[in-house]
Amino acid sequence: MRIPVLCLLPFAAVLAQVPYERILNARSEPHNWLTYSGTYDGQRYSALSQINSGNVGNLRVQWVQQSGHSESTQTSPIIVDGVMYITEPPNVVKALDARSGTVIWSYRKTIPDDLRLCCGRVNRGVAVLNDLVYYGSIDAHLIALDAKTGRLRWDTTIDDYKLGYSSSGAPLAIKDKIVTGIGGGEYGIRGFLDAYDAKTGKRVWRTHTIPGKGEPGNETWEGDSWKIGAAPTWVTGSYDPENNLVIWGTGNPGPDWNGDYRKGDNLYSDSFIALDADTGKLKWYFQFTPHDVHDWDATQVPVLIDGTFRGQPKKMVATANRNAFYYVLDRPTGKFLHARAYAKQTWATGHDDNGRPLVIAGTTPTIDGNLVYPSLAGGTNWFSPSWSPKHNLFYVPVREEGAYYFKGTAEFKPGTLFVGGGQRANPAEEPFGAIRALETDSGSMRWEFPLKTQASAGILSTAGDLVFSGTGQGDVFALHAATGKLLWRFKGGGGVIAAPVTYMLDGKQFVALAVGRALFVFGL
Amino acid sequence: MRIPVLCLLPFAAVLAQVPYERILNARSEPHNWLTYSGTYDGQRYSALSQINSGNVGNLRVQWVQQSGHSESTQTSPIIVDGVMYITEPPNVVKALDARSGTVIWSYRKTIPDDLRLCCGRVNRGVAVLNDLVYYGSIDAHLIALDAKTGRLRWDTTIDDYKLGYSSSGAPLAIKDKIVTGIGGGEYGIRGFLDAYDAKTGKRVWRTHTIPGKGEPGNETWEGDSWKIGAAPTWVTGSYDPENNLVIWGTGNPGPDWNGDYRKGDNLYSDSFIALDADTGKLKWYFQFTPHDVHDWDATQVPVLIDGTFRGQPKKMVATANRNAFYYVLDRPTGKFLHARAYAKQTWATGHDDNGRPLVIAGTTPTIDGNLVYPSLAGGTNWFSPSWSPKHNLFYVPVREEGAYYFKGTAEFKPGTLFVGGGQRANPAEEPFGAIRALETDSGSMRWEFPLKTQASAGILSTAGDLVFSGTGQGDVFALHAATGKLLWRFKGGGGVIAAPVTYMLDGKQFVALAVGRALFVFGL
Repeated sequence: MRIPVLCLLPFAAVLAQVPYERILNARSEPHNWLTYSGTYDGQRYSALSQINSGNVGNLRVQWVQQSGHSESTQTSPIIVDGVMYITEPPNVVKALDARSGTVIWSYRKTIPDDLRLCCGRVNRGVAVLNDLVYYGSIDAHLIALDAKTGRLRWDTTIDDYKLGYSSSGAPLAIKDKIVTGIGGGEYGIRGFLDAYDAKTGKRVWRTHTIPGKGEPGNETWEGDSWKIGAAPTWVTGSYDPENNLVIWGTGNPGPDWNGDYRKGDNLYSDSFIALDADTGKLKWYFQFTPHDVHDWDATQVPVLIDGTFRGQPKKMVATANRNAFYYVLDRPTGKFLHARAYAKQTWATGHDDNGRPLVIAGTTPTIDGNLVYPSLAGGTNWFSPSWSPKHNLFYVPVREEGAYYFKGTAEFKPGTLFVGGGQRANPAEEPFGAIRALETDSGSMRWEFPLKTQASAGILSTAGDLVFSGTGQGDVFALHAATGKLLWRFKGGGGVIAAPVTYMLDGKQFVALAVGRALFVFGL
Repeated sequence: MRIPVLCLLPFAAVLAQVPYERILNARSEPHNWLTYSGTYDGQRYSALSQINSGNVGNLRVQWVQQSGHSESTQTSPIIVDGVMYITEPPNVVKALDARSGTVIWSYRKTIPDDLRLCCGRVNRGVAVLNDLVYYGSIDAHLIALDAKTGRLRWDTTIDDYKLGYSSSGAPLAIKDKIVTGIGGGEYGIRGFLDAYDAKTGKRVWRTHTIPGKGEPGNETWEGDSWKIGAAPTWVTGSYDPENNLVIWGTGNPGPDWNGDYRKGDNLYSDSFIALDADTGKLKWYFQFTPHDVHDWDATQVPVLIDGTFRGQPKKMVATANRNAFYYVLDRPTGKFLHARAYAKQTWATGHDDNGRPLVIAGTTPTIDGNLVYPSLAGGTNWFSPSWSPKHNLFYVPVREEGAYYFKGTAEFKPGTLFVGGGQRANPAEEPFGAIRALETDSGSMRWEFPLKTQASAGILSTAGDLVFSGTGQGDVFALHAATGKLLWRFKGGGGVIAAPVTYMLDGKQFVALAVGRALFVFGL
């Protein structure tokens, strides 16, 4: 006699197609979460308000999905019509029933043992387009799976993992293409952004983040240093459909801490680059940290804002950069509008009219170590920020710490670490953190919610006047979006490194967030 | 500026002493959980009833503690006056604030790389006595830690891990001694039960589970097979204070599946042994499976019951054995009273008056494989059962599966696997499981709650008319103790292999259970 009672009956969801138009208009279906940041604009804002500042105190865990793996779950889930797609270390994609957490299918790619990774076999999530699910595998493949079954549709090698290339960021589906960045900045790669035909996996364009010989910008690299200058693209970018621009952040130049090997501004490292989505052609760039020697990647999700700048309507790109400054750029052109420090920094007095930082002499790494703020982990890191159109505030997870930067030698050998130095913590102080709400145009702080340690997680804001995030100690919390007041907290028992999302099913709103090695789903 | 907000202020609990008398009378303070099974009798029953059959549907997660490790958390927490002590793989002990889950201290022993383990670096929990916390490390040490600080007080080597000895079961604190079993049954060890001076860590007695040359019982082993005959003691036993008996289960003889190397009954493998708690002297034994060739350890927690047997008051020991029979023994003498199958079995027609099974010919392993029920994992396994004095029912997690047992050769080399065969699953059927409620004296089934797969977790019963357990698929559930009706369930997202406990703090009852790689605490 066998009566299955505890497990649900086989899942029979209607797995809907996700054409490009649905992602383009994702704001109009806030019960789903169709792309990495919720919408192409990178705002990670939801119009859902069933969970709100009045009732969030009653939020409770609905279900949990544990990875069973020792590395952290960093996925930002995608939710389509009752199905949730997540990734888990070391290289797993799962489709879950978004109501119950029941696993519908699971895909695991066999990966080689001899990976070259700075930061573990982590992954930040998938993209969906039509009936396929896409993810970048840690051995630098782009993989397409059948959304209904998890069966492999195609598997394209992005680049050679033995040279240090890897993929951990979620791809971005645009029109009929899958755009993906690449990781490996500590291994002397030459960074790029790629677009692949969504149906076949054939590469449509590749734009290097470091111009080749004879191309404008190549002269910002001394000698052959451009060939191994890094500038990776390891976090998901945004898309401006009006101007057909893929706007994507690039990482620091390599070797990280010794600029002697690569004199010059090192374009387009530490920049936002705006590419024509159809051709990959560079339309504009803005470099935040020329000739960076502090590992201050500019890979944060670009936040596209149609708002007001100094009293005038403006289409902007905003970002809280790892170098501790908040920037506002003109979106169609990339022109600098404004910068203001949002965390302690000791390396620049400000910026000139073009947005070039006015660097303070003597702030480069030294043999003995030179104390500079922020640390190499930055005033913030890759953790998704959020922007609320309702409150006109930019929410950023902040890290307040300096570091002794030291300079070392670096020898390039393909597939090995190529960094030229490092940092040591400052024993004289204890680092801390905060969630800060910045005014969109000025970057001045409206409120802050202090954290005991450096912020490590992404942020979601909602029309329910809420800001959700988490801590490295495993707390998940909700703040009032207008005041920063703590309204709810929960101890999930593992450091939060991921970003929250929200969705609605059967008239009930949920918030999902990876905590430690598990995905938690909360609801009222 | 640094304002710690999210983390609690430094914990300042009053860490109370736990003298032996408190453990002895643990039934009188059900708001704590002072020993592995809650009380010395192994009943894993709580008199708490704030969470009950009427309100358990409102149970929700209060906090979670993730291990960050890929191996399963199997700990059964100890709770003393607001402090919870748990173990986590690979070899970690933690004290947590039982209200919030905040870690008070954490101890991690460095362990060698060349462990010899059948079943991972798991651990089932600690013992407390006075101001110390005790656990058995996976490399076969017994460790005493300061309950307030987690600092090491003493570290005693139980035996040589290089010979296959290991420790994973929770010790048992009795009077001024710490009693601990040993694992390593697949490595040709010679099993024993040990008692150590609680203050100094000095060994007070060791009783081998296999009698030495010249001792009664040694003749049940052919030749020198007794020297490497296993009979480990890897799960926590019980204690009968009235008769001053440590009653403990022993594992199967080795090599597991080929009895030709060890002809005879192989005493005291697959037995309950009752030892004088002060001297370790054997007072009685009862062997469930003489000359076992199916790996049917009798290591299940002995359940000591003062109840009624066939209408007469009786002091009993009850157990659902891995061999698929439920047994009732007379506690002072170990005399057989009754046996009845609680799961499908095809190896015995019943038992004689002394409780010796009447074995069916042709049920031993063969070269080609011989289908026998239950499988080597047993009709149940080490997962704690529970007995409710309120309902006079014995609750057992059941596994319904057979297996093709096959016989192989075995060569003993110290510190290497010594098993002589194995099993293959039966492809013709899908195994399943259940929680079954057995009448105490007859063992007949009052109710069952069917599970889709084999049971894998321990059971807690409470005066709130509840039975708590979990599944290998990560569900946690509560049943009505009288009827087995499902009253509450929660998806914790990782297989449950541990046993639940309950406690009360500030007037609020909690249930704690390790799910997958995390400890979950539930409350109303």
